[in-house]
Amino acid sequence: MVLGRFYLSCLLLGSLGSMCILFTIYWMQYWRGGFAWNGSIYMFNWHPVLMVAGMVVFYGGASLVYRLPQSWVGPKLPWKLLHAALHLMAFILTVVGLVAVFTFHNHGRTANLYSLHSWLGITTVFLFACQWFLGFAVFLLPWASMWLRSLLKPIHVFFGAAILSLSIASVISGINEKLFFSLKNTTRPYHSLPSEAVFANSTGMLVVAFGLLVLYILLASSWKRPEPGILTDRQPLLHDGE
Amino acid sequence: MVLGRFYLSCLLLGSLGSMCILFTIYWMQYWRGGFAWNGSIYMFNWHPVLMVAGMVVFYGGASLVYRLPQSWVGPKLPWKLLHAALHLMAFILTVVGLVAVFTFHNHGRTANLYSLHSWLGITTVFLFACQWFLGFAVFLLPWASMWLRSLLKPIHVFFGAAILSLSIASVISGINEKLFFSLKNTTRPYHSLPSEAVFANSTGMLVVAFGLLVLYILLASSWKRPEPGILTDRQPLLHDGE
Repeated sequence: MVLGRFYLSCLLLGSLGSMCILFTIYWMQYWRGGFAWNGSIYMFNWHPVLMVAGMVVFYGGASLVYRLPQSWVGPKLPWKLLHAALHLMAFILTVVGLVAVFTFHNHGRTANLYSLHSWLGITTVFLFACQWFLGFAVFLLPWASMWLRSLLKPIHVFFGAAILSLSIASVISGINEKLFFSLKNTTRPYHSLPSEAVFANSTGMLVVAFGLLVLYILLASSWKRPEPGILTDRQPLLHDGE
Repeated sequence: MVLGRFYLSCLLLGSLGSMCILFTIYWMQYWRGGFAWNGSIYMFNWHPVLMVAGMVVFYGGASLVYRLPQSWVGPKLPWKLLHAALHLMAFILTVVGLVAVFTFHNHGRTANLYSLHSWLGITTVFLFACQWFLGFAVFLLPWASMWLRSLLKPIHVFFGAAILSLSIASVISGINEKLFFSLKNTTRPYHSLPSEAVFANSTGMLVVAFGLLVLYILLASSWKRPEPGILTDRQPLLHDGE
């Protein structure tokens, strides 16, 4: 029953996450002319797709590794490696997404990092980078003491959820900004709600729904790995005790 | 030591919250011509001030009532009443903030609820209304059973934090949108980062900092009311046991 609900949530999460990415691709392909890697506006189109994929969908999925019942028993190290590897993939997608927008701006001599969207977005990516490196140094490398791990774990968990919240705020402000840019000189402006606006607004609301579901499973569900102590007979490698 | 840290956090929270409201007022007064209640753009200027005050600062403060050490002992009912009353004040500020923007739009025959900012904002206010009425019905009125209260409490706590996250996303997209509107035809457009843009972007980042501090105290700090059972000799009124 509990496991059934968990896998149903995973199915919903997978569907929502895929829809977030596919809807963003469809928006860029159908209404914004598709993709290229040449400094043009078609290079910019990679930015929303890669940021939604990296900072929201992959990031959200990677956060939930310890909620898988398979991770609750046995050595924790393989799950830590998976958690770190998936987050690294999310980070790489994010960096490529940033390269896309900076190259487009520089190519067209547009200013970088002036809007609140960009200030919040770059802060979020910076926090993500700090979180990844600190997590790697403290929870994966063997040097850190149990005391330090116990001290930092709640902070790591909190910032994991906080960074996802900030990603959602960045994505929402980004989609909103893009629609005001793209639909300002057309015969059907944003305020007349053309089909592109309805579609892109809905994509934003899907991102919010996906983010909330991840945060719910992460923070409020009962699908959590039991506290250490129960599993002391199968302690994993590398002082893996946090 | 623990209490000292708590009151230091409260001081920081109070300062940040006041700065969020005062900075938004200053932005609207100094750069956007001040306030009126006549359907003009000066009536719109109440919208950002009241939404930041209602949906972020008062809402955030009201969420933290049970983190006050004074609330940890003795009857819970007065604290519940305070929690509900402060949230009601936050909700009233929010509704007046919505009246300001709808009246301004209707007066100038501008479309309502077309941008993603408005879709997310109105969804957040709707969730806040549901949360308040459900909280009132289940946790304040005496009819609900302990079983129902225990079932709904984690959901109430989760949505409390989720609504604040969505408020932050709404505020960020709103400030971003307002700056693109206001600074598009000036000699110093948004992308040249005039002083108004730096000031309003900083206000947005302050809102983010305030929201993160509230979420940290709410979710990750150790300043939580002890679980029931310890305090059974001083049970409050109205089956007040959740």
